[in-house]
Amino acid sequence: MAKRHKIINDPVYGFISLDDDLLLALVDHPWLQRLRRIRQLGMTNLVYPGAQHTRFQHSVGAMHLMQTAIDTLRSKGHDIAPSEAQAALAAILLHDIGHGPFSHVLEHTLVPNADHEQISQILMRRIDKQFGGALAEAIATYQGHCRPFLHQLISSQLDVDRLDYLKRDSFFTGVAEGTIGSDRIIKMLNLANENLVVEAKGIYSIEKFLIARRLMYWQVYLHKTVIVAEKMLTQILRRARHLALDGKPPFAAPHLAYFLANDFHNEGFESDQTISNFVRLDDSDIASALKVWADSPDRILATLATAFINRRLFRIELSRQPFDEELIGERRRAVAQQMNIDEAEADYFVVGGRVTSNTYTLGTDRINIIAGGQLRDISEASDMLNLQLLGTKDQRHFLVSPKPMNY
Amino acid sequence: MAKRHKIINDPVYGFISLDDDLLLALVDHPWLQRLRRIRQLGMTNLVYPGAQHTRFQHSVGAMHLMQTAIDTLRSKGHDIAPSEAQAALAAILLHDIGHGPFSHVLEHTLVPNADHEQISQILMRRIDKQFGGALAEAIATYQGHCRPFLHQLISSQLDVDRLDYLKRDSFFTGVAEGTIGSDRIIKMLNLANENLVVEAKGIYSIEKFLIARRLMYWQVYLHKTVIVAEKMLTQILRRARHLALDGKPPFAAPHLAYFLANDFHNEGFESDQTISNFVRLDDSDIASALKVWADSPDRILATLATAFINRRLFRIELSRQPFDEELIGERRRAVAQQMNIDEAEADYFVVGGRVTSNTYTLGTDRINIIAGGQLRDISEASDMLNLQLLGTKDQRHFLVSPKPMNY
Amino acid sequence: MAKRHKIINDPVYGFISLDDDLLLALVDHPWLQRLRRIRQLGMTNLVYPGAQHTRFQHSVGAMHLMQTAIDTLRSKGHDIAPSEAQAALAAILLHDIGHGPFSHVLEHTLVPNADHEQISQILMRRIDKQFGGALAEAIATYQGHCRPFLHQLISSQLDVDRLDYLKRDSFFTGVAEGTIGSDRIIKMLNLANENLVVEAKGIYSIEKFLIARRLMYWQVYLHKTVIVAEKMLTQILRRARHLALDGKPPFAAPHLAYFLANDFHNEGFESDQTISNFVRLDDSDIASALKVWADSPDRILATLATAFINRRLFRIELSRQPFDEELIGERRRAVAQQMNIDEAEADYFVVGGRVTSNTYTLGTDRINIIAGGQLRDISEASDMLNLQLLGTKDQRHFLVSPKPMNY
Amino acid sequence: MAKRHKIINDPVYGFISLDDDLLLALVDHPWLQRLRRIRQLGMTNLVYPGAQHTRFQHSVGAMHLMQTAIDTLRSKGHDIAPSEAQAALAAILLHDIGHGPFSHVLEHTLVPNADHEQISQILMRRIDKQFGGALAEAIATYQGHCRPFLHQLISSQLDVDRLDYLKRDSFFTGVAEGTIGSDRIIKMLNLANENLVVEAKGIYSIEKFLIARRLMYWQVYLHKTVIVAEKMLTQILRRARHLALDGKPPFAAPHLAYFLANDFHNEGFESDQTISNFVRLDDSDIASALKVWADSPDRILATLATAFINRRLFRIELSRQPFDEELIGERRRAVAQQMNIDEAEADYFVVGGRVTSNTYTLGTDRINIIAGGQLRDISEASDMLNLQLLGTKDQRHFLVSPKPMNY
Repeated sequence: MAKRHKIINDPVYGFISLDDDLLLALVDHPWLQRLRRIRQLGMTNLVYPGAQHTRFQHSVGAMHLMQTAIDTLRSKGHDIAPSEAQAALAAILLHDIGHGPFSHVLEHTLVPNADHEQISQILMRRIDKQFGGALAEAIATYQGHCRPFLHQLISSQLDVDRLDYLKRDSFFTGVAEGTIGSDRIIKMLNLANENLVVEAKGIYSIEKFLIARRLMYWQVYLHKTVIVAEKMLTQILRRARHLALDGKPPFAAPHLAYFLANDFHNEGFESDQTISNFVRLDDSDIASALKVWADSPDRILATLATAFINRRLFRIELSRQPFDEELIGERRRAVAQQMNIDEAEADYFVVGGRVTSNTYTLGTDRINIIAGGQLRDISEASDMLNLQLLGTKDQRHFLVSPKPMNY
Repeated sequence: MAKRHKIINDPVYGFISLDDDLLLALVDHPWLQRLRRIRQLGMTNLVYPGAQHTRFQHSVGAMHLMQTAIDTLRSKGHDIAPSEAQAALAAILLHDIGHGPFSHVLEHTLVPNADHEQISQILMRRIDKQFGGALAEAIATYQGHCRPFLHQLISSQLDVDRLDYLKRDSFFTGVAEGTIGSDRIIKMLNLANENLVVEAKGIYSIEKFLIARRLMYWQVYLHKTVIVAEKMLTQILRRARHLALDGKPPFAAPHLAYFLANDFHNEGFESDQTISNFVRLDDSDIASALKVWADSPDRILATLATAFINRRLFRIELSRQPFDEELIGERRRAVAQQMNIDEAEADYFVVGGRVTSNTYTLGTDRINIIAGGQLRDISEASDMLNLQLLGTKDQRHFLVSPKPMNY
Repeated sequence: MAKRHKIINDPVYGFISLDDDLLLALVDHPWLQRLRRIRQLGMTNLVYPGAQHTRFQHSVGAMHLMQTAIDTLRSKGHDIAPSEAQAALAAILLHDIGHGPFSHVLEHTLVPNADHEQISQILMRRIDKQFGGALAEAIATYQGHCRPFLHQLISSQLDVDRLDYLKRDSFFTGVAEGTIGSDRIIKMLNLANENLVVEAKGIYSIEKFLIARRLMYWQVYLHKTVIVAEKMLTQILRRARHLALDGKPPFAAPHLAYFLANDFHNEGFESDQTISNFVRLDDSDIASALKVWADSPDRILATLATAFINRRLFRIELSRQPFDEELIGERRRAVAQQMNIDEAEADYFVVGGRVTSNTYTLGTDRINIIAGGQLRDISEASDMLNLQLLGTKDQRHFLVSPKPMNY
Repeated sequence: MAKRHKIINDPVYGFISLDDDLLLALVDHPWLQRLRRIRQLGMTNLVYPGAQHTRFQHSVGAMHLMQTAIDTLRSKGHDIAPSEAQAALAAILLHDIGHGPFSHVLEHTLVPNADHEQISQILMRRIDKQFGGALAEAIATYQGHCRPFLHQLISSQLDVDRLDYLKRDSFFTGVAEGTIGSDRIIKMLNLANENLVVEAKGIYSIEKFLIARRLMYWQVYLHKTVIVAEKMLTQILRRARHLALDGKPPFAAPHLAYFLANDFHNEGFESDQTISNFVRLDDSDIASALKVWADSPDRILATLATAFINRRLFRIELSRQPFDEELIGERRRAVAQQMNIDEAEADYFVVGGRVTSNTYTLGTDRINIIAGGQLRDISEASDMLNLQLLGTKDQRHFLVSPKPMNY
């Protein structure tokens, strides 16, 4: 009766119960609590105002699905040891711990040479040390040194990470069509030679999952206004960093200033100082600074930040074909002239690139359907989906540039 | 203020308001009220216990979506006259009025030569006469003598009929994955040359709609247990009819007995007697009779009816290939021997056939996507869906036969 | 792996899993299957078209909540033996097995001297015999010969019966406000001296549950149109029975005719013949007969049945005070004159009575709140609710009589 | 066709359409956009992780309900001029524009002499000037210089503000029981002498609304952990302000520093400088600063901020009776000794007070039920609710103090 017991109220799944001491200690750890201050979808709330949910909610939700998946597999006669289950639950709970604020933006600006998976592992090892080695099996599981299906539940094309975030992002954006039957998909999971497979009657649910995933890509993750906001924020941070490295640091909380003024490779993250600054960093530092930057004496920073915080977003053009370099140059020259800056600086305002939906990859990590003892990749098992074609076709080129009102 | 006003509470859409006098009169008409006693999904509740919803609910729901579609088109600047709107609303409200109980079964047994669309039109004309011609424009609209998009909203591959029933069937079966964004799809509708088109950004919603539709086919409409139940009921009615025509009519309410003992073509339905019997017929007559038939002196009828009402359903085999005639014969001989009946009678127990999902048809009635003023069929506009292949591939052969416990 | 396992798809709770052999056998039993053909809310679908859900769905849902409650209590450190749990689950699964069609109506007409709880027990004992005594503990639990809380979960003011039906009726009628937090209430359950109690922080959920319950009474169960329909059906069956006993039996399936032509006390139900007729009886028999009765040569039966099936419902007057006998007599005389029948017969058309909501009863069966080790009845623990007053005040007198169009 | 048209995707209501030019301009105004960065429920997400929704979402939602209410009243035959409707919509859209971050905390610390309603009016007048007087009628409506019911829809015990936030807060916290039937309540609204009334059959919905409101108070708004977090943040800001006024300003974005170092009365808000700082202030400034303050050389600030950001929250005691001054003093002395600070400073750590739910106030602003032309206050019309008692009884005293781990 004295056992600790926590119930987390989740609008998506209802009550999530937690009574394992290690998991409870992890949920309470300041580095996981920090994920309460990092939104799952960055600035997507500029398009879908409901998209305010955090990586903390997602981490807890993914852990809940992991528990459901383990229960399902056990009910189908597969033995999973308590320590294996605990390790998988801890690993998924921590899988996003290395994320910084506005992750996709950050990885291209503040920490260009470190990626969040690397940082996650560094942080996990630190917590493991703090916890006297209690995370050893969880880290091994995260890295794949475990029975294959456990790692597949953490990281594969049908992992509980995706199962949670698609459902959750759909719920909070209000894009109801993107919702997936995560509970039904989990009920259909089984094992074949220790690998995760989907039972044959689950094929329609998987098709639905992939279509919903693609819909979420184009309607949410790669929504054109989201791309614009992401590119604008990237340029803002690039400029702030330029000023900082140039000896004119703009206003920033010290832990943000640290990253504006330094450059790190993954290994750099091993230093105590970098870690202690990193684990302070969250959405609020950037959001708060942006408003100060709107008054910066640097006109480029001020123009971009003002447009961003007031949601006077740039325009975007989309095309199946790459944009002509000529056209891009023309746009830059126009901006340079309008703002009276030189052409090199105009590339803070005119940004081209390419986005690709990541619906399904035909690699070594497959979604396997089992029927009559035979495994088939979903791309073959499905009559309905052109999965082979997707990789090459499902992308768009974009060109972001200011509207007249943005100058 | 004295104007009549009715609010119907619908678990799917919330409140549905109704204040048009003609529509109110139609909702109150005994022939529409009769649809309260006919389940939308026949005996699907044997698989999904929640599937108890009726054709009445569906008809009102489809009318509600029609209203939403008309509002959307008007808000995009298209003029639709009040009388056009009323006609379209009345037509969709009445579109299922010709359905009998367990429609798919009935059309193969009791009224083999009449289909529900024919009967709907006959009944509409009768009501029109009762109402002094007030339905003339509604009937014309139902038949397609109207602006094309109005008829397309009533009957096409993206009509409000489908938009309602997919959403509703998904809701009541609890197959949440089958749900579609009918509200979003309707928001994306527009007109091109008086024809219904979908705006380009709606393409993912349409893909999702088609995938959900296919999922509903295989998970609900053609669920293997549903096929079994349908085939068993077909054989029961076939046997009851055989007995009736053979001068040994089994118990039945008089209006059911009428159809057991007579044979009609569409034109037969024009007689007052047939109509007055038909509009009494509903699910309850068959459900009630089945229990009496379970005690029938005719062993074939009694065996089938007993198995059916106690949900001791036959087994089904499914295959991509047609079943061998040899195998079917073998099964029949086994039954004949077990039950001590002759082989011809054994075909009440062993039934083969084929089912096909009807996700999308490449005919003249297309779902058109409009982008930059250009129309493209969804089967071309979508990178993701193999719609060309569907027609030929998405079918299954089945063989239904008793389990030992069914004898 | 070979263990039987059944998943029932419930629109209210999602997937309900079942793998206990006894429970599986009970679900498959023809007498429970029969509840698929009996609607939970009788003719409430005349007001709320969605209210088509059956007692089968409710029984399975209540069993699911029982499982959740048992899991919760176990997680709080209370031992519940597997056999105790199985007995409680079986008992709640079977608790409605004695319901006939349109129960409230039936108990006043066809089986006036037998109530559904008595019949349930008779049927349970029969099944127990069929199952070789496997239901002994379930029956004991149903009767209260068990630890108190187990019986309280089956039958008390906070039993899983109510927790399921309030939630379910709210879901299917679309009266969303009536929904209750059955999952939260169950999470708040605990035991004190083997009795069910609610933890202090659950008090608001209980207040909410009682208010929702009262709302459901007046908005659904005692909705004025529902009262009208119930009274009309009562009179129809009373008339049919009168004709049957008078030697002019109206059309009916044999098992319905049996009850029209005979009179039973509880003990009468012990006969094999009565039971075998009773377990055939369901909604369909009455629904089917009603349409034939609309053409009855008996004008009273024909008039009532026609009005009923075409939803030409009588009007109802409601009052806090009893209606004057004078007024009722006047109404009867008017009907007698209009229809040219004698005054005694007019009481088939003019019906008075009283309805009372049953929100909370101050009897020995209380809802107890526990705080600091102290128990208090909800009627004392709640500042907000006037529960003392409810018993005497929350009732209405009604008078049902034909509108001119009903003659 | 060229008319601007915006669709906002809201997880609570679905699509919200907007095509009035004034409303569109207001939604785009930077001061309304700023509400995207202010959470509706402050730090409630520490208890309910889903409670991340913003005042922007609420403002748009309340506007949507206002539109629905206006449509309902018009459909009941009440004329409402387009300009009246626009004014009411604009007023409700702007009603929260004067909110700062963590409003309840802020009003007791940073802007102790200004309340958000005053600030809202100041900001509205500024926007009115920017818009050339286009907001004159909206401001008049907000202030009550309009037909009574319009103002009642904006501000009364049944205003669309409450109808939206109860539903929305319930949705995002996941406290499903708190949900209210805002759509049904709005359908029940009517006018009597230009005042808002509820039709008699809506009485149960109103009871439900009040009970849900009270449940939300105790389960969410005044949840004990929420009180703790609020009191801790209050003390943190009080300390930060103390340091700033004492010449040792802690780190802060300049617009936050401005409020830490100055004191304002309502009138002070009229200065351009104050306004321009205020409209920059949002949740992020405080969240970002807190992390820096956790390293403050001031031990009191550092201790409080560290506990807060790592969610090492203080404990809280609750009581129906006020806490003894003796006990409070004792607690303070203990803290003073433990932390080696003087007793006066210990009151940053030990905080007493009282909270009261605001379910229903028996003032001049009533919820009136209309039945048979008679108006009755809900507190009289309801048999069920003890509304008279609520005002005096529904409160708790609390005492917040550190746990040992918090030092």
